[in-house]
Amino acid sequence: MDFKEYITVVPDWPKEGIKFKDITTLMDNGAVYKKAIDEMADFAREKDIDIVVGPEARGFVVGCPIAYALEVGFAPVRKEGKLPRDVIKVDYGLEYGKDSLSMHKDAIKPGQKVLIADDLLATGGTIEATIKMVEDLGGIVAGIAFMIELSYLDGRDKLENYDVYSLMTY
Amino acid sequence: MDFKEYITVVPDWPKEGIKFKDITTLMDNGAVYKKAIDEMADFAREKDIDIVVGPEARGFVVGCPIAYALEVGFAPVRKEGKLPRDVIKVDYGLEYGKDSLSMHKDAIKPGQKVLIADDLLATGGTIEATIKMVEDLGGIVAGIAFMIELSYLDGRDKLENYDVYSLMTY
Repeated sequence: MDFKEYITVVPDWPKEGIKFKDITTLMDNGAVYKKAIDEMADFAREKDIDIVVGPEARGFVVGCPIAYALEVGFAPVRKEGKLPRDVIKVDYGLEYGKDSLSMHKDAIKPGQKVLIADDLLATGGTIEATIKMVEDLGGIVAGIAFMIELSYLDGRDKLENYDVYSLMTY
Repeated sequence: MDFKEYITVVPDWPKEGIKFKDITTLMDNGAVYKKAIDEMADFAREKDIDIVVGPEARGFVVGCPIAYALEVGFAPVRKEGKLPRDVIKVDYGLEYGKDSLSMHKDAIKPGQKVLIADDLLATGGTIEATIKMVEDLGGIVAGIAFMIELSYLDGRDKLENYDVYSLMTY
């Protein structure tokens, strides 16, 4: 299946010069959305995953159905102040300024094999921060799956020690 | 299954006097998370749903796997400024001040049967705004499913013309 047919490329969004890859037109089609999740879940299945981790909010639309398909749990990565209990947090660089991501400290048990899932690999900053939290909690990052990889941003260079899968590459 | 056993009640969060119902400890358990989604999907299956709609971000952790289980699409409801194409938007009242929610105008086709899914029914403001957008786009709200209903906040009063399901009620 050519999944790219279902992606809408939006010019100049969120700012001039960016060609935004809109996945909502893929998700709108039930058969295509399911097939996309199934292909990502197949990658994870080989890794014998214990739990899926994904950053808010678009990581949830990818990671939660993968967790369902694999019949494993899902642990959310959220912006600071959104999780109600004891958290681990990490600052990460954005194009402009800094932001913080957090996870509940009990979200991952030491030794668990983790799949990190997100919609998009761009520069890789969010995923680098997510890996740090998972590993600090004792988890093993067994695989990282993206719906879309923007290969010209070289985010994969930050992830060279990991097994990375992308459903679509631009 | 007593799903409440897997919910963590967090006192005084996000502010004093609130007993926050944390679903992350349910989602952390793959078998329980899947069972919860399956029960919500069973409610929807009777309604012959064409598409699931859910508000960010916790609506995604419920609505996306339900869409996967039903093999239908998912359309996100997002805060203003997060969706890249033509949107319909609606203001809704929060406890303090106002906020805006939006959906892509092409997310719902006229006549489609819609399941609205979210983690929590509290006062019902978010869901009321979501219903308005779905109906303005010509969709039919065939059902509304929550993981948790806080019945003492009477959110259901706002939804009396709809078929509402809650997996857990407090």
